[in-house]
Amino acid sequence: MNTRRKSKSIQIDRVTVGGSAPIVVQSMTNTDTRDVMSTVAQIKELEECGCELVRVAVPDAEAARAIHNIKKGISIPIIADIHFEYLLALEAMKAGCDGLRLNPGNIGELEKVKAVAQAAKERKVPIRVGVNAGSLPKTTNPELTIAQQMVDAALRQIHLLENLDFDLIKVSLKAFDVPTTIEAYQDIASKIPYPLHIGITEAGLPKTGIIRSTVGISTLLYLGIGDTIRVSLTAHPREEVMAGYEILKSLNLRQHGPVLVSCPSCGRAEVDIIKIATEVEEQLLKIDKPIKVAVMGCVVNGPGEAKDADIGIACGKGKAVLFKTGKKIRVIEEKNFVTALMAEVERF
Amino acid sequence: MNTRRKSKSIQIDRVTVGGSAPIVVQSMTNTDTRDVMSTVAQIKELEECGCELVRVAVPDAEAARAIHNIKKGISIPIIADIHFEYLLALEAMKAGCDGLRLNPGNIGELEKVKAVAQAAKERKVPIRVGVNAGSLPKTTNPELTIAQQMVDAALRQIHLLENLDFDLIKVSLKAFDVPTTIEAYQDIASKIPYPLHIGITEAGLPKTGIIRSTVGISTLLYLGIGDTIRVSLTAHPREEVMAGYEILKSLNLRQHGPVLVSCPSCGRAEVDIIKIATEVEEQLLKIDKPIKVAVMGCVVNGPGEAKDADIGIACGKGKAVLFKTGKKIRVIEEKNFVTALMAEVERF
Repeated sequence: MNTRRKSKSIQIDRVTVGGSAPIVVQSMTNTDTRDVMSTVAQIKELEECGCELVRVAVPDAEAARAIHNIKKGISIPIIADIHFEYLLALEAMKAGCDGLRLNPGNIGELEKVKAVAQAAKERKVPIRVGVNAGSLPKTTNPELTIAQQMVDAALRQIHLLENLDFDLIKVSLKAFDVPTTIEAYQDIASKIPYPLHIGITEAGLPKTGIIRSTVGISTLLYLGIGDTIRVSLTAHPREEVMAGYEILKSLNLRQHGPVLVSCPSCGRAEVDIIKIATEVEEQLLKIDKPIKVAVMGCVVNGPGEAKDADIGIACGKGKAVLFKTGKKIRVIEEKNFVTALMAEVERF
Repeated sequence: MNTRRKSKSIQIDRVTVGGSAPIVVQSMTNTDTRDVMSTVAQIKELEECGCELVRVAVPDAEAARAIHNIKKGISIPIIADIHFEYLLALEAMKAGCDGLRLNPGNIGELEKVKAVAQAAKERKVPIRVGVNAGSLPKTTNPELTIAQQMVDAALRQIHLLENLDFDLIKVSLKAFDVPTTIEAYQDIASKIPYPLHIGITEAGLPKTGIIRSTVGISTLLYLGIGDTIRVSLTAHPREEVMAGYEILKSLNLRQHGPVLVSCPSCGRAEVDIIKIATEVEEQLLKIDKPIKVAVMGCVVNGPGEAKDADIGIACGKGKAVLFKTGKKIRVIEEKNFVTALMAEVERF
């Protein structure tokens, strides 16, 4: 894996993004922000599954003001997502938002940008500027690739803020096309010092969207790029957070609860390995600690892989061998597979 | 994206793996291979969702002989998965298998390896040799990383076959740990000319296993490594094939049916975008052609992204704009969102 790109870190309230801070998992609510109760309830659900930063849409002044009451009910920093209206940014900051997502180039005259940058600087509220391949300004140079146009557009937004002596900046460059997204982030990574928020835009419903997002995000992380991630899905945002952690766990970049190793069921298995693994997966939802659990259905690869786990079973016909950190503990009967395994997991 | 590694191609019956051939999607049955009817039925299901090569477990002579009848009912090449018993390899070839998965180092005396290599050469049956991090031989050099031990073990298997003048070889190096897997494939990619079968082993149940597999496989493909892929899941193998294609589509390496772009639902959306997108996703299952369809729930990013699609809708309150290759066709009412969109998809 490439060494992680060294970025300037920023503080979004007490959450550090960039530098050598852990890669931050974020999401966005899909409730009506003006509906404080529903929004707080959804954010609390997100906190429970590990969400570290949450963004809310701010379509009007009522939504901006709602942030004040939302903050009372939640524990993670909140970012206000604003389009075009600079007054909404000022209102959201007054209401106590911890970060802003807006493009200064879209809010009009320089005086308005100045007012936002000044208030943000006073309150130490970072701003994410972001370019989406779907809403690029018309290019003056048709020879540029989409990725280059995205980088150019982002640099213009960044320079607007830098010229106002504002540098609490985070940057995103999202496209639906994964190679375009990777090209754009690789390019800008060498041109600016700011932390990068990475993701694939409009990736779609979970079944396909998780794969598309994972392809883009994981390749960038492997290349050392990315300080905070969002898996955008047409789904409950809980799924975004859970997918985000699975990506980071797969690259050993974060720990987050248990890891379940299980073999693909094949014509060699003598037990219903899908059923057993599914039961274990459900039971593991209650476990917080980072523990590696294995459920193997084959005597060929089973013992080897299961030995590598903290706790594991290698199942044969009617019986399984229970392992703990490489050592066989005992043989268990099929009716006790899940309970015996989980008892050892709890004890570990 | 890196240029694809140039590998020597092999033929598994009429499917080319390696060289400049498209990256092949494969899976493995989880039926009892001796049960010809169930195995044929599952392989036919896999064919329908695009599986191009299928592997079956061959635990005994009856399973090896069953390949003869299985082949009569299927249209894709079949690979026999064999452990330890060289006679099963000979039997599977007699029954007409198109490829073998076995490690010559595990079948005993050189005479046995010779018999298998000779029969495979005569019948033009390629052999995949593969190393799994979970079942590595004891290393003589404890300073080697796991990835280096995997490469060493694979090279020993390869040399056994090369010394018998056999070169219809494909190689895999799978671990559960993604960075280990990537390191191993990167290392061996520069040392041998053979095509590479890539995947993550024992990745687990779909929810987490798809993400882990995608992280490993997509990073390798981005680096230019990989000629055939298997997404190993503790699930029906259909899910392996579908996930495989989504990975390849996300990197623009293969086309396979429609692509659905849809925005994450946010507090700005005025329609139930999850519901609409889910309905469209279901309807698109019936469509074979590679078409890009967009379902957007927001006036900010919606029109831009939807214009990029072949057909798309950008939904506002009660109404949506229907787009076709960048041009607005007409405004549609909410009750017609899905039917109007699908009518245009069919017509495209």
